[in-house]
Parts: sequence; C-alpha cells; structure tokens
Amino acid sequence: MKVEIITIGDELLIGQVIDTNATWIANQLTQHGFEIVAISSVGDCSEYIIKAIDVGFERADILLLTGGIGPTNDDITKHTLCQYFHTALELNDEVLKNIESIFLKRNLQLNKLTHKQAYVPANSNIIQNREGTAPILWFEKDEKLLVSMPGVPFEMKTAMDKDIIPLLEKRFHVNEYVSRSCILTGITESELASKLADFELLLPSGFSLAYLPSLGYIILRLSVWGEEHLKEMKLQMRKLKHIVKEYYVSKGSKLPEEILSGKLQKKGLTLSTAESCTGGHVAHKVTLVPNASKFFTGSIVSYANSVKEQLLSVDINTIELYGVVSKDVVEQMATNVAVALNSNCSIAVSGYMGPNGGQKGEPVGTVWIATKYNEEILSLKYNVGRSRKQNIERTANLALLQLIKMIGK
Amino acid sequence: MKVEIITIGDELLIGQVIDTNATWIANQLTQHGFEIVAISSVGDCSEYIIKAIDVGFERADILLLTGGIGPTNDDITKHTLCQYFHTALELNDEVLKNIESIFLKRNLQLNKLTHKQAYVPANSNIIQNREGTAPILWFEKDEKLLVSMPGVPFEMKTAMDKDIIPLLEKRFHVNEYVSRSCILTGITESELASKLADFELLLPSGFSLAYLPSLGYIILRLSVWGEEHLKEMKLQMRKLKHIVKEYYVSKGSKLPEEILSGKLQKKGLTLSTAESCTGGHVAHKVTLVPNASKFFTGSIVSYANSVKEQLLSVDINTIELYGVVSKDVVEQMATNVAVALNSNCSIAVSGYMGPNGGQKGEPVGTVWIATKYNEEILSLKYNVGRSRKQNIERTANLALLQLIKMIGK
Repeated sequence: MKVEIITIGDELLIGQVIDTNATWIANQLTQHGFEIVAISSVGDCSEYIIKAIDVGFERADILLLTGGIGPTNDDITKHTLCQYFHTALELNDEVLKNIESIFLKRNLQLNKLTHKQAYVPANSNIIQNREGTAPILWFEKDEKLLVSMPGVPFEMKTAMDKDIIPLLEKRFHVNEYVSRSCILTGITESELASKLADFELLLPSGFSLAYLPSLGYIILRLSVWGEEHLKEMKLQMRKLKHIVKEYYVSKGSKLPEEILSGKLQKKGLTLSTAESCTGGHVAHKVTLVPNASKFFTGSIVSYANSVKEQLLSVDINTIELYGVVSKDVVEQMATNVAVALNSNCSIAVSGYMGPNGGQKGEPVGTVWIATKYNEEILSLKYNVGRSRKQNIERTANLALLQLIKMIGK
Repeated sequence: MKVEIITIGDELLIGQVIDTNATWIANQLTQHGFEIVAISSVGDCSEYIIKAIDVGFERADILLLTGGIGPTNDDITKHTLCQYFHTALELNDEVLKNIESIFLKRNLQLNKLTHKQAYVPANSNIIQNREGTAPILWFEKDEKLLVSMPGVPFEMKTAMDKDIIPLLEKRFHVNEYVSRSCILTGITESELASKLADFELLLPSGFSLAYLPSLGYIILRLSVWGEEHLKEMKLQMRKLKHIVKEYYVSKGSKLPEEILSGKLQKKGLTLSTAESCTGGHVAHKVTLVPNASKFFTGSIVSYANSVKEQLLSVDINTIELYGVVSKDVVEQMATNVAVALNSNCSIAVSGYMGPNGGQKGEPVGTVWIATKYNEEILSLKYNVGRSRKQNIERTANLALLQLIKMIGK
C-alpha cells in the first residue's frame, strides 16, 4: 500500500524547523508494512497544499498530512481540505466536548478561537485528538485516503500509535512485518558492519539487517515480510547474538533508561546518581520512566568542585592529585552518593563535555564513569568526542548501559 | 525566485535518516532571499525522481537535488538526469583530475567504481566537488535551473557555500528575507491569537505573523520580503510588543536556558536548582549551554522525601501539613538549596508528572515552582496537564522562564 507524507508549515520551508515528523511517520509505517513513496513539505498556502495533494494522489493510495490545523490564522489546512473535497465546516459536538474537557482539566476558560476547532469538514470522519484540541480528519475519495493530523509531534504520535495505524492495518491487508531487534554498545557502526559482513551475505532471501545508531549504542534490526519466516528469524537472531555477544546489552529496542528501570525493579534495587559533566541528564532520563520513584531516590549534581567536596565528601587531595576527571574521584562520588541518598546502586560521572576545557592528555570528550551495584564498583574511561550536546547525551547513555551490563540478567 | 529542494535516497523514506540537508539548504537560501516553495523526498528510483523533477519545475524556477550520485549501484540520480535531459555520459578530464588528486591525498589506489564518477552528462555544466569525488551537475532548460549535489552533508554544504549560492546570487536578483521573533509565556496559542486578531488584520501587505508553540512558551515571528520594509518591521514589532507585554519574555528565538544563561552571566549571578518532579531536567537544560560552570553550581534532585529532609532541610511538619507539592515546600527548597550550593539565585520544583499520582484537588499536572533572585522569592502554581514526558519538559521551561521574568532586563 503506497503512502505519501505531506508536512505543512512555513517554518519547514524557511529552514527553522527540521522535519522530524515525516521521518517518525515513515519509520513507523515501514515497520507496519506500508511503502512510503514520497515525502513533501509545503508552506501554509492553499495553492501549494492542493498541488501537493494532487501530486500525492497520483503516486500514492494514502496521504498523511501533518500541520497547519491549529486555531490561528496562519493555519489553513482545514479550510484548504474543505475546498479540495468540496465541503464546508460544521460544528461537531464530540470534538467540542473533547476541547471543553481539556480546557477544564487545565483550568482555562474556553475562548472563541479554540471553539473554532470544533468545526470540522462535513464529509470527513473525525478521530479525537487525545492530547490536544485540533481533531484528526479522515477523508475517503475513490478508494483513496487522506488523513490530516496536527503538526505538534506528541499529538501526532499518539494519534498515529493509538488510532491511525490500527485503523490502516484493519483497512488494508498488508503483509506482516516481522522484526527482531537488539541493543549493542562498545563498538562503532563500521566495525560492527565488518564483523557482520559474512552474516549479511548469508542471510536468507527477504531478510534485511538495519543498523540504527544512537549516541552510545546501536540497535540492530533484522526484518522480513511474512509470518512464515518466524522460525528462520529465531535461528538468524541466535546466530547474530553469538557474533556480537561481546557488545550485546539486551534484546528489543527499549531505551537504556527503560531497560535499567526494569532490571532495578525486578531485583528490588534502588538508585541514585552523582553527576558532574552530565548536569542531571542521567537523573532526567531515569525519571522520564513512569514510577521512577519506586527505585530512584535522587541525585546530587555537583557542577562546582566545592559541591563535590561538601555534599559528596570527595577528598580535596584526590582532586588535586588525580584531577577532577579521574577514576578515584568518580569512585568516591559513586560510593558517597549511595550513602547520602540511601541507595544500593549508583552512577557517578565526571568528564569534559566541551566546547572548551579539557587537560593535557585529557581532551574534550574524556569521561570517567563509575557504577556501583551493591558492594561492587566498576569504573571505566571513555572518549565521547564530538560536540557538547551529543557528548552529554552519549555519556548519559553510556552510564546507564554500564550499570545495566554490570547488573546482568 | 522560487526554489524546490529534492532530496533523494531510500534511507529517507524508510525513516532511517532525518532529512537535515533540506532544512539546512532551506535556511541558507531563505537568508539569501530565495523563496522555498516545496521540499520533496523520493527514493532511489528513476520513475519517482523524474516525477519529482516534473512537479518541481511546475512550481519552481530552481531545483536543488541532493543524493544518489555516489559510485555504488543504488545511486542512480546521474543516469536519471541523462534520461531527463536527453543526453549521455562522457568522460570529463577535470573531474578525473579532481578525483585522482583526492585519492593521492588520501593515499588510496583509484578503483573502477570511483573512476566512473568522472563520467558526467554531456550537456551539463560541472562544478568540482571540493570535498569529495562526485561532481556537482548544473543543468539549464528554458530559463529554469537544476543543480544536482552529493547527499553527504559536508560535501553539499561546502558546494552550496563556496559555489552554488554565489552563482545563484550573481544570476538572479533576489529580495532580502526580513524577520523578527520574540518569545512569550503564560498564554495559550489561541488566547494569543485572539489578542492579536486586530494586529494581524492591520498588518501591512506582505507582512506575515507565525505562531511557533513550544512546551511552556510560544515564539512569534513577523516576516516580510525586502529590506525596504526594515523601518516598518521595527514599528510593527514595537506595536506587537506593546500588545503582548504581559507575556513578553525576550526578543529573538533563543531557548529559555540560553536566555537565562545570558542574563545570569551579565549580572554576575550564580544558580542552583532543587528538583523533585523534574528529576534534574532543569539542571540538564542549563548545563547544555556552553560555559554553564561560570554560573551554575549544581543541583539536588530530591526524588525521595527523605532526601528533601536530609539534604534540603525541608521541615517534615511542612510536608505533613501542606503536602509535598505546595508553596511552603518549594520555598524552603529554593531557600535551602541556595545556601547548600552557595548560589544567589535558585529554582525549586515539586509536582505530579503522572501518569499516576496526584492528590484530591491536586491532579496530575499540578506543579509548584519557586524562584529565588537574591533575597526575593516568587512561588507560583501551574497546571501543566498532558503526559509525563511533556509535563517534565513544560515544567522545566516554565521554571526557567519564571526566573528569567523575575530577573528582568
């Protein structure tokens, strides 16, 4: 089933916003067995939106639109769709109720503009927006389909996950997409590709291996169309796991913080963090997971050295002798934060994130990470390279992965 | 002058790679006065590439293509362009020299595949690739222009900066794109649009106002083509600022953490944070900004109540009397973290981020934020609603913005 994604918004065409919506949708739909034939972005301009829809329907069966359906005047997608499908707006009571309940929850007075969101094209089917006020519009025309979604990423993603993908799957018979993933760390993408060259060559027809690199880890995804390949998939995954066992963290494609959260809760363990260079990012990742309070006690972000001394009791002599980015400092941080914040596991990080800083022989990107699991402590040195934001993200992931591997099964 | 960007590659359509090339090109060209009318992405498939070029020439004068011109079999853009422009490949000595010199520099043996790169369409003009082996192709047809560039970002960027943009500017007389932005908080997009309805109606011809909502704030962007409107732009921005002054945070489109970092450093102030529900996310945002160590001392992430008592000296009676999400608790947190971490400003946050939790009359989304600026303390209650990840992001932004507004100019 051929799909085209059309993203709408002036901000895309002036290069102010990177179009991550289209990539996310393309990725999800591919995994669900749909073929994306094109992605188009146009501005908030009726003429260009209509042109894009015309072109889209020439090459695709399903058009997925995002953006331009907010309440303000620059959002014109809804009116353009009325024009395209020869219809007019009418008040929809269900949408109005949804909007009212959102405003009630947020303790806000409903205003005229938002009230306008309850008007929808008469000949479209409506899917309620579970996260916001702009409804999702579903049009059908000559066996073809157009769905208009909000451009706000989390509103669009919830609608896709909970409503649109299930509806599309029900409606169209697509081959089952079978895929298995695993997460690896401690190897570059090109090294991994060399290691897996023979494995890839020998893959049975139809199977394909994808490398999805993130900062600090790589997800490998093996996929094939058709459920009849399930048994072969199992065999291939076992073979794959054997080749990469040194770098293997976990099956699936969960985020490191989700994997760690599961392991800690399963074992009844608790966690605290002592962070210098990551500035609280490890704690932030951990607390993104619902129910983090069940295992996470807190963090001391010791950006200033005085905080390392006063709150984490790091010995000033150790800092002077070995430097603040050193094995001894992170080990003291890990040990002492577990005492101060009353946890049996801990993570401690110290490093140079750039763009400035670093020492002789210890350039920007040098990081020490200590992880404590009950009475054991492991400390490793990394070089995360690259730019500040990526360094912080990569370091936080490496810290989580180090503790995950230490805890084991 | 109307431009369409066409990015080519299967990896874009399966959602494996985010199309940052298109955004970069759009941003650069907009700043140089060109108008981007559409961005299209298609796979490595002749039929779809030709269709995209046809559609592109209907709405634009200039087509900029990236991708699909490497030496491997899946790269078919060059052959497709031969087909489209009714021409054939011929060996170009200048390109061959460029390729040979690159291989010499890298100490590599020239191979057959790379030698093929020296064959170019007979009726195209050639721009040498300053960073790689694939030449840039420049076609002209009936007053229209097509430029095919490599998809490797730094090769494309160098070619754009050093060759293509200068050539386009020489060739076309273009208008300047003038835009001004400001950041607002404390108002919904729809309320803001109501307030600005008259302002928008009265905008001089050519001016347009865009709303770019983020979690916790909105960026407004006023734009127009042509430098002759600079004076009018100034007038309109002054008028706009007056209407929204209650919600106004700052001009420009910087992130809250960047604005706060600037203000703190300008005034020689220091900052610490005491975070419950945001779990270190405020500290993380602040430390994403380079040189954060100049003003940020650290954070105490007090996820467990025992940490609030022991490290932040929050009175257990206050927690029992008013609850942990209360004005009194965040004020104690803000005061005490500033003492513990030796800073003159601080941010303290406590709230229910969901999906579970909350109290009677204090549902998920209820947050108290206290900000301390020298001896002053301001504490405000918010309802951030929505889902956990968004709640954390919104709360962190609101906390930063509350302190920014408190510090003032």
